[in-house]
Amino acid sequence: MGQPLASPGFTDGTVAVRGALLDFVDDPFYKPEAEVVRYVADGLLLVRDGHIEATGPYQELNSRLGDRPLIDHTGSLITPGLIDTHIHYPQTGMMAAYGEQLLEWLNRYTFPTERKFADADYARQVAELFLDELLKNGTTTALVFAAVFPASVDAFFEAAEARHLRMISGKVMMDRNAPDYLCDTAQSSYDESKALIEKWHGRGRLLYAVTPRFAATSTEAQLKLAARLLDEFPSVYLHTHLSENVSEVAWIQELFPQYQGYLDVYDQTGLVRSRSLFAHGVQLTDAEFQRLSEAKAAISFCPTSNLFLGSGLFRLEQAKNPEHSVKVGLGTDVGAGTSFSLLQTTNEAYKVAQLRGQKLSAFKALFLATLGGARALCLDDKLGSFEPGKEADFVVLDPQATPLLALRNEGGIPATLEDLEDLLFSLVIMGGDRAVAATYIMGELAYPSSV
Amino acid sequence: MGQPLASPGFTDGTVAVRGALLDFVDDPFYKPEAEVVRYVADGLLLVRDGHIEATGPYQELNSRLGDRPLIDHTGSLITPGLIDTHIHYPQTGMMAAYGEQLLEWLNRYTFPTERKFADADYARQVAELFLDELLKNGTTTALVFAAVFPASVDAFFEAAEARHLRMISGKVMMDRNAPDYLCDTAQSSYDESKALIEKWHGRGRLLYAVTPRFAATSTEAQLKLAARLLDEFPSVYLHTHLSENVSEVAWIQELFPQYQGYLDVYDQTGLVRSRSLFAHGVQLTDAEFQRLSEAKAAISFCPTSNLFLGSGLFRLEQAKNPEHSVKVGLGTDVGAGTSFSLLQTTNEAYKVAQLRGQKLSAFKALFLATLGGARALCLDDKLGSFEPGKEADFVVLDPQATPLLALRNEGGIPATLEDLEDLLFSLVIMGGDRAVAATYIMGELAYPSSV
Repeated sequence: MGQPLASPGFTDGTVAVRGALLDFVDDPFYKPEAEVVRYVADGLLLVRDGHIEATGPYQELNSRLGDRPLIDHTGSLITPGLIDTHIHYPQTGMMAAYGEQLLEWLNRYTFPTERKFADADYARQVAELFLDELLKNGTTTALVFAAVFPASVDAFFEAAEARHLRMISGKVMMDRNAPDYLCDTAQSSYDESKALIEKWHGRGRLLYAVTPRFAATSTEAQLKLAARLLDEFPSVYLHTHLSENVSEVAWIQELFPQYQGYLDVYDQTGLVRSRSLFAHGVQLTDAEFQRLSEAKAAISFCPTSNLFLGSGLFRLEQAKNPEHSVKVGLGTDVGAGTSFSLLQTTNEAYKVAQLRGQKLSAFKALFLATLGGARALCLDDKLGSFEPGKEADFVVLDPQATPLLALRNEGGIPATLEDLEDLLFSLVIMGGDRAVAATYIMGELAYPSSV
Repeated sequence: MGQPLASPGFTDGTVAVRGALLDFVDDPFYKPEAEVVRYVADGLLLVRDGHIEATGPYQELNSRLGDRPLIDHTGSLITPGLIDTHIHYPQTGMMAAYGEQLLEWLNRYTFPTERKFADADYARQVAELFLDELLKNGTTTALVFAAVFPASVDAFFEAAEARHLRMISGKVMMDRNAPDYLCDTAQSSYDESKALIEKWHGRGRLLYAVTPRFAATSTEAQLKLAARLLDEFPSVYLHTHLSENVSEVAWIQELFPQYQGYLDVYDQTGLVRSRSLFAHGVQLTDAEFQRLSEAKAAISFCPTSNLFLGSGLFRLEQAKNPEHSVKVGLGTDVGAGTSFSLLQTTNEAYKVAQLRGQKLSAFKALFLATLGGARALCLDDKLGSFEPGKEADFVVLDPQATPLLALRNEGGIPATLEDLEDLLFSLVIMGGDRAVAATYIMGELAYPSSV
């Protein structure tokens, strides 16, 4: 593998990177892969001021290098930065909590852990470790649950801002069915969220998500105030959980008997919109999929978490049904998910598909983790591919990163799309964080932190 | 973590190792964990000539050190070497083969790969890499499919013998429903297996397994000759596949209409015995579990493979039903399994249990990978725990091996069994090969290969 020549800050966001370039121009769930996969075996990515300027074959573009530094990643595969559409930063230290399914897991492990994030110093420390882990795993953007405390949001955004990351986060809203020490009120959650939006939303690359935990821990009054925030700030997001586990769905029905099911609670309170992202959706009915499609809302598919908590097998093919397609991204859902790696998460997505008699191709898997995630977050004008003008967040994957991968991929960078898909599948299944040789943010090396 | 002071060969198999010692004296599926878990937070393992001499608290045993070198692994957890009860060494280079379930996967990927093992040089090269991977993952004993070619067995045993490993392997027997280039005949498979048994079985630590691939690729004549080998050499093993996938079970019924199901084919041909190990058993009926129990035969539970190929969810609680208990070990089943790590395999076993509404505790998981595996292989007089007299194959696990594990386990080595179980669960879920700080074979450091 070529060694990076630049260190952080050196390139000033203006740089050229040589390697095998792979991205998507459209969705392989709806168009033939050969039409939507863009692959240049010996490619050059020209970056200026942190944005993609041009991309194409090295032989065509190398005359345009000028005096920008050339970083040679020949032998590696360069893809757009990976996008994690559902993750909880306060749960970084509680991964692998034993023996419970969703509701008991929340009470026994999650709530006591999140309490610690009232302490801003502790929150800052975990936020840094969390961002280190994201970058090590090639994840450059994430939609992130903070804790209920505004200070936990400040700590996260401060850490993300210092690293120039495009991150979306928000304060948890939760005014019932949780310990007192974690509860806000409908009004205080509105006020605090509003102040955080005014402080952080659109500051640099940061964006805000209104974040009720899930319908069971919010009163109807709180959900309606969340919707008011969406009305008042139309460019903020809605981020919550939906239909993860059978007992949860039944509980929601008990709590909200006046509504027609789980999604309808969010819908009638005004939360189902095009910038709404619902994590899980394992138990969704066909009609609910259809409603999400109509509303142009998105789902975060979190296979590792769904297996770890025994929640069930997400019906990806139903979400991707061309009759009523729903935007889908991938989520690690750390800490119910047990890995920060979106490659490892695609591995688990493949297994979920296999158990359901479906196939998830390597290209479709990578699409979900890149352009698919960007579309789910309405950020595909800025992220998710190498289209000129987009922000230059990208990942360098070494197909021979371990002795087993070196044996598996002894041919190195492939010439054909068929061989590329085979190589990519090996990274989906066996890659994890080890395949990530480098992560760049706005054209600057962000991982490894020093070379 | 304490640094090992010895290098390979230095200790001559006579050594003392200090650390937190964890093993089992009996099966936690049938007895309370507090009764069967043996834990010494500050322990000493005294090893002489490659065998356990004594184990207990450091303060009690340190007077018996004599002049043997003391290796300090304080801060780490030391367990018996992990035992992989089902793996294919010729498939090392074909992990992560895309998109098929069992039967198509065999035809499309496996058979062409195994053909390469007619070449003894190639076989030797892969055998070395395979053993490197086992040791890196803390696996000290495995029951291993070779290929159909006797040279592939020689290559494997030669490599294992040079490392003083206790390994069990055998030539694949396969006389139909496979490409000509991989087929033997009933008679040639008998003759070749017999010659290999005479050459290798009982040589040093090596043992032989008669290895028909599965009933679909053997004629009844071949299965009966396999049984004759078991009669002639009562201490060899039988190693094959059983009831992995729905289509496979249906095909066996077509191929052997005269028998009462899949297991009955093996039973009526004389292959269901106490030294018989059947991989998978995902589709077994209750009556088949009962028959395996009566015969004292064993199952290898291979969760990673079962998820990767979409075979299904093994009913562990049925195998462990105290009314008719079946011996169960864990198998990675590389290359349908996608990791050499038995810790990673316990992670997937936990998920299989969760999807079935069951819980697999960390202690039960580690039992399956140590003493449970030894019992499944009828090797519990030699392996699987720290009982004095047993062979000193053991693994050093670092509970703070990664930044995430360090955060998760910031308390270090625990004092109580409850805290130990919590720490162990983090290694089950997040450990993989990274948690393996060192692997010892007969009291000598085998991984890392140099310090």
